[in-house]
Amino acid sequence: MRNSFGKTFKVTTFGESHGVALGCVIDGCPAQISLKEEDIQRELDLRKPGQSKFATPRKENDKVRILSGVFEGKTLGTPIAMIVENKDVRSEDYGNLKEVFRPGHADFTWEVKFGVRDFRGGGRSSGRETVARVMAGAVAQKILEAEKATKEKKKGGKKTSGKIKIYAFAAEIGGIAGEKVDLDYIEKNPLRAADAKKEPLMEKEISSAAREGDSVGGIVEIIIKNVPAGLGEPVFGKLSSDLAAALCSIPAVKGIEFGAGFLSTKMRGSQNNDPLTSKNGKITFTKNDAGGLLGGISTGQDIIIRIAVKPTSSISKPQKTITKQGKNTQIEVKGRHDACIVPRLVPVAKNMVAIVLADHVLMQKRNLS
Amino acid sequence: MRNSFGKTFKVTTFGESHGVALGCVIDGCPAQISLKEEDIQRELDLRKPGQSKFATPRKENDKVRILSGVFEGKTLGTPIAMIVENKDVRSEDYGNLKEVFRPGHADFTWEVKFGVRDFRGGGRSSGRETVARVMAGAVAQKILEAEKATKEKKKGGKKTSGKIKIYAFAAEIGGIAGEKVDLDYIEKNPLRAADAKKEPLMEKEISSAAREGDSVGGIVEIIIKNVPAGLGEPVFGKLSSDLAAALCSIPAVKGIEFGAGFLSTKMRGSQNNDPLTSKNGKITFTKNDAGGLLGGISTGQDIIIRIAVKPTSSISKPQKTITKQGKNTQIEVKGRHDACIVPRLVPVAKNMVAIVLADHVLMQKRNLS
Amino acid sequence: MRNSFGKTFKVTTFGESHGVALGCVIDGCPAQISLKEEDIQRELDLRKPGQSKFATPRKENDKVRILSGVFEGKTLGTPIAMIVENKDVRSEDYGNLKEVFRPGHADFTWEVKFGVRDFRGGGRSSGRETVARVMAGAVAQKILEAEKATKEKKKGGKKTSGKIKIYAFAAEIGGIAGEKVDLDYIEKNPLRAADAKKEPLMEKEISSAAREGDSVGGIVEIIIKNVPAGLGEPVFGKLSSDLAAALCSIPAVKGIEFGAGFLSTKMRGSQNNDPLTSKNGKITFTKNDAGGLLGGISTGQDIIIRIAVKPTSSISKPQKTITKQGKNTQIEVKGRHDACIVPRLVPVAKNMVAIVLADHVLMQKRNLS
Amino acid sequence: MRNSFGKTFKVTTFGESHGVALGCVIDGCPAQISLKEEDIQRELDLRKPGQSKFATPRKENDKVRILSGVFEGKTLGTPIAMIVENKDVRSEDYGNLKEVFRPGHADFTWEVKFGVRDFRGGGRSSGRETVARVMAGAVAQKILEAEKATKEKKKGGKKTSGKIKIYAFAAEIGGIAGEKVDLDYIEKNPLRAADAKKEPLMEKEISSAAREGDSVGGIVEIIIKNVPAGLGEPVFGKLSSDLAAALCSIPAVKGIEFGAGFLSTKMRGSQNNDPLTSKNGKITFTKNDAGGLLGGISTGQDIIIRIAVKPTSSISKPQKTITKQGKNTQIEVKGRHDACIVPRLVPVAKNMVAIVLADHVLMQKRNLS
Repeated sequence: MRNSFGKTFKVTTFGESHGVALGCVIDGCPAQISLKEEDIQRELDLRKPGQSKFATPRKENDKVRILSGVFEGKTLGTPIAMIVENKDVRSEDYGNLKEVFRPGHADFTWEVKFGVRDFRGGGRSSGRETVARVMAGAVAQKILEAEKATKEKKKGGKKTSGKIKIYAFAAEIGGIAGEKVDLDYIEKNPLRAADAKKEPLMEKEISSAAREGDSVGGIVEIIIKNVPAGLGEPVFGKLSSDLAAALCSIPAVKGIEFGAGFLSTKMRGSQNNDPLTSKNGKITFTKNDAGGLLGGISTGQDIIIRIAVKPTSSISKPQKTITKQGKNTQIEVKGRHDACIVPRLVPVAKNMVAIVLADHVLMQKRNLS
Repeated sequence: MRNSFGKTFKVTTFGESHGVALGCVIDGCPAQISLKEEDIQRELDLRKPGQSKFATPRKENDKVRILSGVFEGKTLGTPIAMIVENKDVRSEDYGNLKEVFRPGHADFTWEVKFGVRDFRGGGRSSGRETVARVMAGAVAQKILEAEKATKEKKKGGKKTSGKIKIYAFAAEIGGIAGEKVDLDYIEKNPLRAADAKKEPLMEKEISSAAREGDSVGGIVEIIIKNVPAGLGEPVFGKLSSDLAAALCSIPAVKGIEFGAGFLSTKMRGSQNNDPLTSKNGKITFTKNDAGGLLGGISTGQDIIIRIAVKPTSSISKPQKTITKQGKNTQIEVKGRHDACIVPRLVPVAKNMVAIVLADHVLMQKRNLS
Repeated sequence: MRNSFGKTFKVTTFGESHGVALGCVIDGCPAQISLKEEDIQRELDLRKPGQSKFATPRKENDKVRILSGVFEGKTLGTPIAMIVENKDVRSEDYGNLKEVFRPGHADFTWEVKFGVRDFRGGGRSSGRETVARVMAGAVAQKILEAEKATKEKKKGGKKTSGKIKIYAFAAEIGGIAGEKVDLDYIEKNPLRAADAKKEPLMEKEISSAAREGDSVGGIVEIIIKNVPAGLGEPVFGKLSSDLAAALCSIPAVKGIEFGAGFLSTKMRGSQNNDPLTSKNGKITFTKNDAGGLLGGISTGQDIIIRIAVKPTSSISKPQKTITKQGKNTQIEVKGRHDACIVPRLVPVAKNMVAIVLADHVLMQKRNLS
Repeated sequence: MRNSFGKTFKVTTFGESHGVALGCVIDGCPAQISLKEEDIQRELDLRKPGQSKFATPRKENDKVRILSGVFEGKTLGTPIAMIVENKDVRSEDYGNLKEVFRPGHADFTWEVKFGVRDFRGGGRSSGRETVARVMAGAVAQKILEAEKATKEKKKGGKKTSGKIKIYAFAAEIGGIAGEKVDLDYIEKNPLRAADAKKEPLMEKEISSAAREGDSVGGIVEIIIKNVPAGLGEPVFGKLSSDLAAALCSIPAVKGIEFGAGFLSTKMRGSQNNDPLTSKNGKITFTKNDAGGLLGGISTGQDIIIRIAVKPTSSISKPQKTITKQGKNTQIEVKGRHDACIVPRLVPVAKNMVAIVLADHVLMQKRNLS
C-alpha cells in the first residue's frame, strides 16, 4: 500500500528496477493543460544515468511513453499514465544478492516485511523507482505554468509576478559546502552545484571516495520562488508536512529543515521571528528565517528547504553482513552505482516539490466558496 | 481540509483555542481494546499548561470526555470521539490581535488563506490545538500495548521482547545540549530533560530569556524501543515519511532528522552503513547510524529522531509588524504563553509518534495474506 | 473504519444510540459561509422522533451544539464539529437484547464482526445514527446556497436559474403509491407524502400494521432541481455511484434506481435515449428517462432517484430467533420504534444527497485550471 | 479525479477507448499471492468483443501485459500495473462524433464538464474502459482464493466451507426473464444466461432489435457464495454501499437492489425479516430476503444483487440531437457496438464485485487486534 502521493493531484507509481517498466498514473490533473512527451523527457534526461563519470554506467535512455489522458496535445482531465521501459537489465550482476543483505540497503527490511523480494538491483527499493516521480513532477510543473496564465487572464492580461519556479542544487557534497548560489549554473555542471568555485572541490571529494570503492553524501537545497501566500492546509496538510513527507520518501534522505531549521533552535524568539513590513502597499518581511512558511502556510517569501542525503549505500569496499539464513559473511557490492547520488537526486527532489505544489495549488481552489 | 492523519488508524481533530471545545474522532481503532478516560487524562496531564513557571498561566484542567466508541471499558470498533471543553477563555487578552499580525505566528498566512480567522489566541493555529493529538495518541498507545498481548497469546503465552515504547525528551534547550540520556528522569523534571546535570543550565537559559521578554527553542529527541522490523510502507508511506509529516505538522517544528541525520552527509558510505550481524541466531546490527530505518522500513533497532523546535513566537519584547490594513506598527504580545515550548511539545511529539506507529502496526496486518 | 463520507466535503460521524452523544466533524467546508445553529436545528427537527403517532415515542429534543469551525456566524475553513447529546436513554428497555439477536437487525452481523457490541438500542447500527448525517447535510445545503450567490456575483449580479434544491418525499408506503407530486405538500404532512389524496390511505396502511404489532416499508423519491450540468467524476466518482453509496448506507435501504431505472431494462434504445434539443440557444432534452445523469454526470435536467425502504425490523409480533449462545428462542421487540420508517427517512435521504452534491460542487472546481 | 476504487485493495484505472492502452494499477495486493498473466487473460477473454453475433465486431485480442509487482510467479506486495494495448483503432469511424452529441451517451456531459473530450469511440466514457476493471478483478479473485488456503492452514489443514465464489448472469434480456438458475450454464452460452430454455427467447429479442437498428437492455443478477459473516464496514463502508457504488459506476447501470429489494417495500416486517435459527450448532437463517446483508454487513448467507442495465445507447436508427454549436440535427450512430450489452457486462459486474470483496476481506483483518 501507499504507492500514491497527493490528495487532489494524485500520483500513483509502480515498477521494479529490473522489471518490465516503471511508470505512474496521475489522477487529478485538470483538463486542457498543454502536455507533450518532450515536457516529460526533458526532466527525465536531467535524472538519466550516465551523465557524469560518477554516475552508474547502466545504459537506460529512459524514453517516456504517454499511454492515456492526453489528446491532441492537451490533457483530458482523465488519468495520465506514463511508462519508461527497462532496457539494460543485467540481472546476473545481482544474482548474489538473492541470498545476502547489503548493508545500508532495504534488502533486509523488505525481506522481513513481505517475506519475498525482487532482489535484482533492489527491486522497488531501488533509486531507479524515482524515474516515476520525475515523470509526474514534469506534469506538475506544467500545471504551475498554466496557473500563472489563468491568473493573468483573470486579471485582464495584467502580468503577475511570475510562475512558481523550483530550483534545486547540490549545496554540499562530501563535506564541501557551496558558498555562492548561482541558480543559472546548476544545469551547466554535472554535479548540479550552484557554486562554480566549489564544484571542483566537490568533484575531487567524490573521485577520492570512488577510487577507494567508497561513496559520499551531501545536502540538496531547494528554493521555491514566486509562491503565492496562503498555500498549505492546516493542521495535517501543512506545506511543511507535505514537503517533509515528499522529500523524506526519496531514498537516501535522512533529514530535512526549513529556513533557519536546526539553527533556529539556538536563537532567541526576537532574533528568529521575521518582522512584517509594508512597502508601497506591498506586504513583505524584512528577513526570511522562517523559510517562507508560517504555521505551515506559505508567506509569499521564497520557500527554502535543505535535505540531508546519506552517502550511497552501494560500495565495492568489503563490508560485514549476513545471509538470508543468518550466517555471518562479507559483501563487495558489484553492479552499477553512483559514488555520490546527490547530483541525480537533485531533479528528483525538484519534481517531488513540484508535485506537492501542484497538489496545494489545486487544493486551495476550494477553500473559499 | 486535511485535518485527518493516518490511513488505518485515522485521527480527525477539530477545535479553536478559544472556541467551545477541542477534540478528535478516531476511526479505525480495533474493537475490544481496554480504554478508560484515565488513560487519556494521564497523557493530557503531561501536556497541561501551568506545570512549570515558564509555561502559560492559562488555567485549563483539560478534562477529557469520551463521547462514543467505548462501552463497558472496551472499544467497540466504532469511532471514538473525545472532547476537552475550553474553560479559561479570556478573549479580551486577544482583542488587539484582530487587527495586527504577530511576527512568527500564522496570523498573516491564515488571513490570506481563508480571508477570515478566529484571532482569539490564534484560533486553530494555536499550540492548544495539540490537545487533540495527545488524546488520540493515548488511544494509539493502548493499541500498541494490546498488540503485544495478542502476539504473546498467539505464541502460546511466550513472552515477547516487550511492547513498542516511545520516549521523548528535551535533548537541547536554548543551545544547552543534554549529554547523558536517562529515560527515567524525563517525567521527573518539568523541562522533560533526560540529563539531570544539564537541566539546571537549561532552566537558567529559559529564565534569562523570559526576564528579557524573550524566548528560546531547542531540540526534542524521540527514541522508540521494541519496534518490530518490517513496519513502513514503500514508497510514499515509509515510516520516515509518515514520521516526518506527523512531526513537521506540530507548530514550531522547523526540521527533523533520523539517526545520524545531517551528520551522515559528511560520512563515507563505509562509515555510515550499519553492518548486519548474527548473534546466537538473532539478527542485529553492529551500530545504528540509520536510526532504525532502512528504505524507510523499521530494522528492529531503536528508531531515533530529532526535531528542531524554534523559539516561542509570542514574546513581550516590542516587534515591528503591520496591521491588517498594511500599516506599519509595533506589537508587544500579551496574553499567556510559554517562554520555551520544548517541554510541553515533548508529550505532543510522543503522541504523534504513537499515532504513526499504531497506524503502521494495523497497516502491516494486510501485507501478507 | 469507514465512518467518513465525501472527498472534498468530508463528513466523519460518530456516536451510539444510547451513548453520550452523536455527532459529526466536517472537514472541507469552505471559509466564509454563513452558518448558525438554527440552520442545523431546522433540519434536525424534521427528522426528530415524536412528530407523528407512528414514530417512536422516545423523547429526544435533538438540540445541536456547534463545537468548532464557526466564528461570528461564519465558517472558518476549519473543521466543523457538532454534537447532539442523548437525553432519553432508557437502556433497561434493551437489557434483553444483550443475549438475543433481533431478526432484520444488525445485532448478529455486528457481533460476528467485532466480537463486541453496544446492544442498547442497536448501538451504532441504530437508525439514530442518522442524526449526524442530517447535521452535516444542513451545512452542505448552506454551501449549495452560497454557490449560487458566488456565481451570481461573478456574473455581475445577474440572476442565475436558482440554487440546487433537493426534494425528498414518501412516494409509496405499504404498497400505496402517490400519483400526484406536490412538492409544497411534503412538509405539511407527517408522512412526508407529496400526494394529499393518497396520504390518508398510506396512513391507514401504517395504522393497520401497527395495530397488529407489525410494520410497513415504502419508497422515497428524491428530485434535485437546478443541478448544473457537469457534476460527477468519471469513472468511480460518478454522481450515480456516489449517490448510490450515500443512499444505500442509510439503514433499511435495499435498492435504488435513477430515472426510468429498472423500467428502462424493458425499453428499446430508441425509446430510452433522451433526444437533445436546442431551444432559443438553450440546450435541453425532450424527455428525462436518464434521470438527469449521462455517464454518471449531471445533464442539467432534474436528477430523479427512488430508493426502496424495507419495513421496520423492530416489530412487537413474536419472531423466531436465537440467543448469542445459539439457542433457538422467540422475541417480541419492545422499546420505542416506528411502525413505518419512511417519513423519518425522508430528511435523512435529502441530507445525504446534499452532502454528495456539496462534495461534487467543490470537486468540480479543480477540473479546469 | 476519482479513478480509483477500494480502500485497502486500491485499483486505479486509466485509458481511452482509442488511446494507446487501457490499464490499471493495484496498490494493496498482499505479497506472495500466485499470479500469472493467464489468470488475467482468462477473465479478459470472457469480456472480449466478437464472441457473439450481437457483440461489436471490433477486433481486439485484449492481450494483458503485467508491468510490475509480480516476480517469479508471486506478487511482491508492490503495485501491480497491467495494460492492454489498443490495436483495432479505426478513429475515422468516429470523426463525425467530434461535432455531434450522441443521445444516451456521455458526450454532452463530458464536454460540459471538461471543455474537451476524446470523441473517438467515447474516449474514457466508453464501455471499453471496463477492460481495466476486469484485469483488477482477476487479481481480486486470486486473493479470495488465497484467503481460503490461509484460513485452512490456520485451522491445521481442516477444510473450510469453500472459497468466496461470485456468479453473475443475464437474469433478464429485453423483457425476457430467466426462471431457472443453472450456474453451470452461464459460461456455456454467449448470452451468459442461466436458463437454457429462456436463452433462445432472449436471443430472438436481441435479433429483432438489431434488425431494426435498435437495442435492448436487461438485468444482471449476481450471487456470491461462501461469504464469511462479518464483512462490511459501518456506517459508510457497508458492503451494500460499496457494492452499490461499484456496480453503479459501470456504464449503462441504472439501478440496483439487494435480496428482495424493491419488492420488500410492499412486505410487512413480519414477512420481510429473516428468522435466525440454529441447526446442529450452526447458526443460519430460515430464508434470505435480506440478500445476505444485515446492517450492510454479510450474514453468511448468499449475497444476492440485481442490477438494471439500460438498452445500448448506440443505435443506428436515426435520432434527434444537437451539434456542439447547439444546432438541431439528426444522428445515426455508426461504428461497432453491441445490440445488447448485458452479456459482456456480466464479467465486468462479477469482477467489480470481486474487487469489493477482496477490499473488505483485507479491511476486516484490522478490526480486531
